[in-house]
Amino acid sequence: MSDSFIAPEALLVHWQGHRRLTRRVIDAFPDDKLFTFSVGGMRPFGALAMEMLTMAVPMVRGALTGDWNASSSREPRPKAELLALWDESTEQLNTLWPQLPPARFHETLTAFGQYPGVLHDLILYVIDNEVHHRGQGYVYLRALGIEPPAFYDRS
Amino acid sequence: MSDSFIAPEALLVHWQGHRRLTRRVIDAFPDDKLFTFSVGGMRPFGALAMEMLTMAVPMVRGALTGDWNASSSREPRPKAELLALWDESTEQLNTLWPQLPPARFHETLTAFGQYPGVLHDLILYVIDNEVHHRGQGYVYLRALGIEPPAFYDRS
Repeated sequence: MSDSFIAPEALLVHWQGHRRLTRRVIDAFPDDKLFTFSVGGMRPFGALAMEMLTMAVPMVRGALTGDWNASSSREPRPKAELLALWDESTEQLNTLWPQLPPARFHETLTAFGQYPGVLHDLILYVIDNEVHHRGQGYVYLRALGIEPPAFYDRS
Repeated sequence: MSDSFIAPEALLVHWQGHRRLTRRVIDAFPDDKLFTFSVGGMRPFGALAMEMLTMAVPMVRGALTGDWNASSSREPRPKAELLALWDESTEQLNTLWPQLPPARFHETLTAFGQYPGVLHDLILYVIDNEVHHRGQGYVYLRALGIEPPAFYDRS
């Protein structure tokens, strides 16, 4: 533990806390706004959430198995279907994560055949990308007159 | 290293990468928009950046010294002054961070006399808060017709 900022298990807990909040942000959008509404010509929140799904499990699975093939579809779909995909990813992360040997997080690899980096940085990039785009979702919700979920609540 | 997702030094490098990007986002705002413009009734980006400053160094200094007193001013100021405060914080973080004993990151404390948590979670909260609000700044910039800096560029 002497050279550790955070242990792998704690980082997964941290990430899943973020993912619970992101799920609430998805759910806060009216179904007819999720893939249509945005501000400043940016992508709608549904497309951003689909991007998150194409990064999270595929990153962890790729790092574990070397198989970087994954769906990159970000097509619109009903909110219930998006939430179901989200919940499926939650379970998959919980299953895959403990299988990663801790030493793996410190190794350099090339994610998706094109993004080289140390695995801990690649994973933090995926989490940060979620937080970044979720922050945009907060602005979309406010612009729609909807109160977003509390940022500090990760329950 | 066996129970480490990321080492303290690497986490600081990661954070300072985020802070370089946030500095570019501050700098991308016209001076007269930094503390006035927002979307959906939210706080302007200058106020959000001031909030980041009142969290980052004060969190690390408090964890190191037990002194949780810090300025909480988020008053408007010229962009050049905000950027100077940002650069000052950058240096302070670089000085303070290596003084934190690695075991400290795994200890529970009460930040600012009111936020209990394990230090690694408290620090990740500060970083996530920066990424979250910076994502909102991206929307503000787009709404102003300004291209934000590239999210993936942390140079």
